[in-house]
Amino acid sequence: MKAKLLKLIEEQKLNELRKYLETINSADFPSLFEELEEDKILIIYRVLTKEKAAEVFTELDPDMQEKLINYLTDTELKTVVDNLFFDDEVDLIEEMPSNVVKRILKNVKPEDRSVINELLAYPEDTAGTIMTTEFVDLKENMTVKDSFDKIRKIGLDKETIYTCYVLTIDRKIIGVIDVKDLLIADPDSLIKDIMNPNVITVSTLDDQEEVAKMFDKYNFFAIPVVDKEKRLVGIVTIDDAIDVLQEEIQEDFEKMAAVIPNDESYFKTSVFKHARNRIVWLILLMLTSIITGGILDNYESAFVSLPILVSFVPLLMDTGGNCGSQTSTLVIRGFSQDEIRLKDFFKVWWKEIRVAVLVGIVLALVNTLRIFIQYGFDQTKLALVVGLTLVLVVILAKSLGCILPMLAKKLKMDPAIMASPLITTIVDSCSVFVYFQLAVMIFGL
Amino acid sequence: MKAKLLKLIEEQKLNELRKYLETINSADFPSLFEELEEDKILIIYRVLTKEKAAEVFTELDPDMQEKLINYLTDTELKTVVDNLFFDDEVDLIEEMPSNVVKRILKNVKPEDRSVINELLAYPEDTAGTIMTTEFVDLKENMTVKDSFDKIRKIGLDKETIYTCYVLTIDRKIIGVIDVKDLLIADPDSLIKDIMNPNVITVSTLDDQEEVAKMFDKYNFFAIPVVDKEKRLVGIVTIDDAIDVLQEEIQEDFEKMAAVIPNDESYFKTSVFKHARNRIVWLILLMLTSIITGGILDNYESAFVSLPILVSFVPLLMDTGGNCGSQTSTLVIRGFSQDEIRLKDFFKVWWKEIRVAVLVGIVLALVNTLRIFIQYGFDQTKLALVVGLTLVLVVILAKSLGCILPMLAKKLKMDPAIMASPLITTIVDSCSVFVYFQLAVMIFGL
Repeated sequence: MKAKLLKLIEEQKLNELRKYLETINSADFPSLFEELEEDKILIIYRVLTKEKAAEVFTELDPDMQEKLINYLTDTELKTVVDNLFFDDEVDLIEEMPSNVVKRILKNVKPEDRSVINELLAYPEDTAGTIMTTEFVDLKENMTVKDSFDKIRKIGLDKETIYTCYVLTIDRKIIGVIDVKDLLIADPDSLIKDIMNPNVITVSTLDDQEEVAKMFDKYNFFAIPVVDKEKRLVGIVTIDDAIDVLQEEIQEDFEKMAAVIPNDESYFKTSVFKHARNRIVWLILLMLTSIITGGILDNYESAFVSLPILVSFVPLLMDTGGNCGSQTSTLVIRGFSQDEIRLKDFFKVWWKEIRVAVLVGIVLALVNTLRIFIQYGFDQTKLALVVGLTLVLVVILAKSLGCILPMLAKKLKMDPAIMASPLITTIVDSCSVFVYFQLAVMIFGL
Repeated sequence: MKAKLLKLIEEQKLNELRKYLETINSADFPSLFEELEEDKILIIYRVLTKEKAAEVFTELDPDMQEKLINYLTDTELKTVVDNLFFDDEVDLIEEMPSNVVKRILKNVKPEDRSVINELLAYPEDTAGTIMTTEFVDLKENMTVKDSFDKIRKIGLDKETIYTCYVLTIDRKIIGVIDVKDLLIADPDSLIKDIMNPNVITVSTLDDQEEVAKMFDKYNFFAIPVVDKEKRLVGIVTIDDAIDVLQEEIQEDFEKMAAVIPNDESYFKTSVFKHARNRIVWLILLMLTSIITGGILDNYESAFVSLPILVSFVPLLMDTGGNCGSQTSTLVIRGFSQDEIRLKDFFKVWWKEIRVAVLVGIVLALVNTLRIFIQYGFDQTKLALVVGLTLVLVVILAKSLGCILPMLAKKLKMDPAIMASPLITTIVDSCSVFVYFQLAVMIFGL
């Protein structure tokens, strides 16, 4: 691909170059540009048709976009901006430094500027911020033939074209129809007779994650967004919904690993920012684990007279942490997939307790065997203390792994923060306490 | 919705009922059925048009599907099965118990049976298992008008209709064209003049996750699947791709929490199976943490003469674990999003070491302050030992959090297994060792 392009550029066959570029998928341009020198990139970019140029532009990462904008003349920039979808334009404005934003806004058509300002005003993470205001709207008294004429005239991108919305005079949505149904229908039939009047809509202020999840449930290509007066103001398309789903999942992974979520990519984030995103939870968790240390302090006389007790502390702490994180991960994921709900609390807890008893007993048996082998068969008391603690710790860890995310959900917090790091630290204190308490009782220390 | 349905059923207005049901999205039927009694469900299901009945059927969960099949007569079942897409039919056969499968296969048209058998033969997790064999194929000498006639005649579902593939006589794929482009084109133009000859395809044996990721990169609605001879054999549609992405992410979450991944839902998995999926890693990790215990054993004389040393063990273990899991999560996610590659190893490592130094110093300072407050300002040696260990442990944890997933990737294993549980356990041994070694040196124990 690269060789062919360079050859066409060198031979100055620009028409052929344009034709060839048309056949390359826009999503492949970023990696292509990475391999080319800047003057070649500019030649290629300037030769693209204006629709393709806009499409390619939205695929580039913000750094490349900024660089490109700085190379383009105002006229060229205007052409690109005019051909962007509103949602992509808003994304661009949100990513660029202020001097670039100024240049972009200067080159936006005045009538478009107000739409963009409206879109920029929606609160973060709402449907309003990810919707586009370009869509095909039909009237109920149009025929199928009229509708096709209108679709052809608007000639939008494929994400926005295949679902058409039927509006009243005051832009309230009363029906939805797929291009597929239009294709099958008699050209003279009326839209109102073939549209589906049962339209599923979202509101501009709905959480973007909830909107994205609807694409997973319903096989939509787009979902209509209405304002408070139930007027259609935009649509969210499936490509943006997939992006939101991916972002939210990344956020969950980060939260569950005690990292403060970050929109930027790993390499783009500076060392200082990485450190800042991680230190908050680390300090909090470190201070929490002081409690565990304090409990150990309390049993100083016990472990000084029986030092072997100390060597089981890591095993108990690790096992407790692992059991807790297994359960909390399953519960947190269950929530985010709407598989587990708050009302299932007792069902989940009861299941986890039974799992815990099974797992705990197996772990205790394996560990008893290991104690007998390592320290001799006369260590029944030690095996008893460690084994009993293991069973109790597993039950406790799995209970907390289920209770804490549920509690967070109940308090309308994000359950993902109740993931392994926090649960591990809490379970640690409990397991150390149970362990030494049992040891003191059984060994009579 | 429910009240209206019950009223229509009671009044026996079946035509009106059918019309109303048409307007309800198929994805809403499962929750609707959950609220209705079985006889009502059957009435509703029997009244549906045959296309809607098939659509609704694919939305139901396997339990409900099985129940429904058992209620349907052979003729009814035949109608449902005939209207299913091949990929949904294959899914169904894979989910049902053998007696139900027998009944399904008995009611499949003989010519379809061979297609199903072929699809069933593809290895697990390949593109072949998630593709459907229904698509719109055109010839290069057809006109746009011919193409619309063909699309109307085939009349498939919307996922499969909007991208058409241009094939040669021997079914090799030579072009792709969107319905949108057909709509805009002159009805008399030839397909070969307007199709895009640069087709992105996948092979039947490609990993389904890689295929699904292509939907994230390119804004496709469907991707063509070719066999070894480059003949088009099916397409993967975006709805199935989203399902695959969700499944794979769930698997990653489970692996990273030391749970063996499981296709079934939380509630459908039995207590025994839950226990089995969790015990394997727990035993392995428990045995690993024996090493940490052994190291503690070695320093028995040190902590017996200075028992306060023990109370910092939880803090060091927890912090090490948390730091390691922060890094490993970011690296594992970076891999799965193709943001981090193997060749970036030194770049990532160097970044992590700098982050670790920053984070380690801050944690050491906070902890020093706390030691001074809790134990008095004369505890400089203790503060030094714990502080130094903290810095070293954080560097070590973040290094391992980057090295181990990279190593797994290099060895063509899944990096997700190198997540927090395993890294925590490994970091634990190292931190206990470093800690006591430093203590022995600095306190001269």
